[in-house]
Amino acid sequence: MWETSVIVAVGDEVLTGEVLNTNGAWLGQALLAAGSRVTQQVLVPDDEAAIRDTLLSAWQTADLVVLVGGLGPTPDDRTRDGVAAALGVGMAVDPLLEARIRLRHGRHPGSEASIRRQSLVLDTATVLPNRVGTAPGQLLLRQDKAVALLPGPPWECRDVAEGFLREVERRTGRRIVRATWRCYGLTESEFAHHLGDLLTSGSFRAGVYVRPGVVELRLEASLGDDAAEAMELLSRAGAEARSRVPVPLYDDQVPIEPARLIDALARRGETVSLAESLTGGLLAAELTDVPGASAVVLDGQVVYTDEAKVRLGIDRHLLAEAGAVSEPVARALAELSRQRSGATWGLGLTGYAGPSGGTTSDPVGTYYCAVAGQNGTVVHRRRTRSGREVVRLAAAETARFLLARELVTGPNLDSEDDR
Amino acid sequence: MWETSVIVAVGDEVLTGEVLNTNGAWLGQALLAAGSRVTQQVLVPDDEAAIRDTLLSAWQTADLVVLVGGLGPTPDDRTRDGVAAALGVGMAVDPLLEARIRLRHGRHPGSEASIRRQSLVLDTATVLPNRVGTAPGQLLLRQDKAVALLPGPPWECRDVAEGFLREVERRTGRRIVRATWRCYGLTESEFAHHLGDLLTSGSFRAGVYVRPGVVELRLEASLGDDAAEAMELLSRAGAEARSRVPVPLYDDQVPIEPARLIDALARRGETVSLAESLTGGLLAAELTDVPGASAVVLDGQVVYTDEAKVRLGIDRHLLAEAGAVSEPVARALAELSRQRSGATWGLGLTGYAGPSGGTTSDPVGTYYCAVAGQNGTVVHRRRTRSGREVVRLAAAETARFLLARELVTGPNLDSEDDR
Repeated sequence: MWETSVIVAVGDEVLTGEVLNTNGAWLGQALLAAGSRVTQQVLVPDDEAAIRDTLLSAWQTADLVVLVGGLGPTPDDRTRDGVAAALGVGMAVDPLLEARIRLRHGRHPGSEASIRRQSLVLDTATVLPNRVGTAPGQLLLRQDKAVALLPGPPWECRDVAEGFLREVERRTGRRIVRATWRCYGLTESEFAHHLGDLLTSGSFRAGVYVRPGVVELRLEASLGDDAAEAMELLSRAGAEARSRVPVPLYDDQVPIEPARLIDALARRGETVSLAESLTGGLLAAELTDVPGASAVVLDGQVVYTDEAKVRLGIDRHLLAEAGAVSEPVARALAELSRQRSGATWGLGLTGYAGPSGGTTSDPVGTYYCAVAGQNGTVVHRRRTRSGREVVRLAAAETARFLLARELVTGPNLDSEDDR
Repeated sequence: MWETSVIVAVGDEVLTGEVLNTNGAWLGQALLAAGSRVTQQVLVPDDEAAIRDTLLSAWQTADLVVLVGGLGPTPDDRTRDGVAAALGVGMAVDPLLEARIRLRHGRHPGSEASIRRQSLVLDTATVLPNRVGTAPGQLLLRQDKAVALLPGPPWECRDVAEGFLREVERRTGRRIVRATWRCYGLTESEFAHHLGDLLTSGSFRAGVYVRPGVVELRLEASLGDDAAEAMELLSRAGAEARSRVPVPLYDDQVPIEPARLIDALARRGETVSLAESLTGGLLAAELTDVPGASAVVLDGQVVYTDEAKVRLGIDRHLLAEAGAVSEPVARALAELSRQRSGATWGLGLTGYAGPSGGTTSDPVGTYYCAVAGQNGTVVHRRRTRSGREVVRLAAAETARFLLARELVTGPNLDSEDDR
C-alpha cells in the first residue's frame, strides 16, 4: 500500500515561481526514503476546482496524494475546501484545536474567523499535529487510498510530516537505498558511454547526472524483504561501474560537500585557508555557510586583480611571464595562503570565467585548482564549456574534491592536466 | 494565443527532489513577463509514456506547453520520444546540428550514438539554438497550440529560452509590466499593514514578498492596448505606497542587484573592496560573479576568525572590548579594507549567523554592515529571526543596498540601529 504517491503543491506564489518549491523536493526525498515512489508532482493555483480535480486525477495513478499548502487563515487558502469537494465530505470546527490555536495566537489575536477557519477538520480525518505553527495537517483514508494535507511554510511542513512519514513507512513496509559515484574529468556522454548497458539493467534504477565540475552515477534499489540483497546489488553495480570507466570513481566516503568537508577537517583538528581569483570568494562562502566553520576556515583572500595577488605575495614577474591563469600562479596562491594563515591546507583557484579573456592554450572556461599541504601541492587543470557561473561552481567543486581526496586517500601529488 | 501555459519538468532527479526545480520557477516568472500565465506545473519521471500523457492532458487546458529536461545524450533522456509519441510524428538527425555537436565534443568524442541522439529533430520542429551546450531546444506548432522543448541544465535552459520567450511575447501580443518597491527595516506583516487596501485594488495585481534582508511590494499590470496607461497606473500606485509607509521605499533606480551595482560603479570609474566576517566571501562571490567585476572589485578579505581580523589591522583591544560583532568592528573592517586596497568604497560585514553565539543585546541573527567612503562611514545594524543562510544573505543584501544608495542619493551618514 501507498507504494506510489503524487505531491501537489498548492499556491499561486509557488506556481508562478515567485517562491521555490522546496517542500516538494524535500517531500519527494522523504517519501522515497519511506518506501513510496513519487510518480508525479503538480503545482496548482489557490483555486478550489483545481485542487479538487488534481486530487481526483492523481488518485487514478497513485495510492497516496500529499497536498502541501493552502491551509492558512486567509480566504485564498482553499485546500480544505478542494479536498472536501473531491471527497464529498463536510468539515467542522474541532473545539480542542480551536482552543489551542486561540492560545497560540496569544497576545496577537487574529480575527475569530481566521482562528475558526484553521480549526476546521474534514469529516473522518485524522489530525496531524503542528508543533511549530497553527493549522494542523490532516490525513484521510479511502479504501486503499489516502490523502494527506500538510501546511505550506517549510518548517511547519517538516514538523507535521514527521508522524505522517512514519505511517508511510509502516504501510509500505519497505525502504529504498541509494548510492552515488562521482566522476571528475569525463563529460556526461563519455561517462554514459563507458557505463554502457549498466544504465539499463533491470534490477535497479540508474541515472547519470551532471553538475558543475562533476558527473554522477546514481543507483537506487528497493530494500524489500531482503535488505542485505539490495545493498549487495548496489555494491556490485558500483564495482562494475569502476571497472568500466577509465578514470577513478569516488563514492560517499570522500567528503566533498561543504558540510562534510568542514566536519572531516574539524574532526582531524585541521584548518584551511583560501586564495581565490576566479571564484572571488565563492568557495569561502560555501565553506563558511557551514555552522562551526570558524574553527576550520582560518583566512580567505579574494585576489581578483593582479594588485591583490601581489599584496598576497605573488611575484610580479611570475604574473607577467606565466600569466594570472596558470599552473604556477594557482600553486603559489595555495602555498602563499597556507603560509600566511598557518593553516594545515591552502587552496588556490584561478581561471577564465568568461565571457571574454582566455588564450589559445587556455581558452575561456579553463581553471586551475591547487591544494597545498605539508607533503606538497597538487594542481589540477580543467575546462568546462559552459557559462561563467558554471565555471566558478565547477572550480569550487574541484577544489573541494581535491582537498577531500587528500583527507581520505592522500597524499595524491599527481597533478592532472585535463587538456 | 499562448495566454496560458503549463510547464512540465522532466527528470527523475527533479521529480524525487534530488535537484530543486529552479528552471520551473524561473520559467514561471519569465513566461508571466512575456504575457503567458502558468496555470499548472507538472514534474514527471524520465518516462516516455508519462511525458506523452502529460503533454496531451496539458493541452486540454493550456495553449502552450513547455517541457524542460530530458534532451541529453543518455538513454534515460526521453523527452523527444514522448513528444513524438504524443504528436504522432517522427524525428530525424539534422546533419548541420550533428556536425556542430561533433565539433563541440572536440577532442573528447562521445559515442556516435550520443551525438546522433542529440542531433534528432522532431518533424516540423523549429530548432531553438543552444549556445552554451549541445542539445538544442525545439518548438512545434499545432493549430493554436504549441509545445516547446528546453534543455534541463539551468544555464542551457536560460540560453535556449531567450529566443523562445521573444516569440511568446509576439504571440501573446502583450506584456505584463511590473514594478518593485523595496523596504528595508519593516517586517512583512508590518509592511502589509501599512499598505492596507492598496494590496487588494482591482486594477492591478499586488503582492508583498519577503526575501532575506528586504521586503518587496511588487505590482503588476497588463500592458494591453494602452501601454502608457499601465505604466501610469503602476507609478500612481507606487506614489500611494510611499505615502502610506513610514520608512523610505526604494525603486529600481537604486542599483542593488550585483550586476547593476558593478555596472554603476564601473560607469563612475569607482572601485570597491570588502572585509567579510559573517558572510565569509558571499558578498565578494556575488559581486565577482558579474562579468567585468575585475575592474571594480579590488580586494576581498574573508576574516572569519579573530586572527584574520588582526591580520587585516583590527585592534586586539577593540575586538576584546567591543566584541567581533559590533558597530566599531564593522566600521573598522570597512575602513581598513578601503585603506588596504585604495578602493573608492570599503565594505565591512560582521554578525552572528547562528545557530549558536550571540549576546543578550545582540542575539543570533544580528548583523552590522558598514560602507566607508571619502565622506565617512555609515553602519547599519539589523536582525533577522531566520536561519544561518538567511542571515548571511540578508547582510549581503543590506551591504549592497547601503552602497547602492550612496551612489544614487549619498552621502547618507545616518547610521541606523534597527533594534
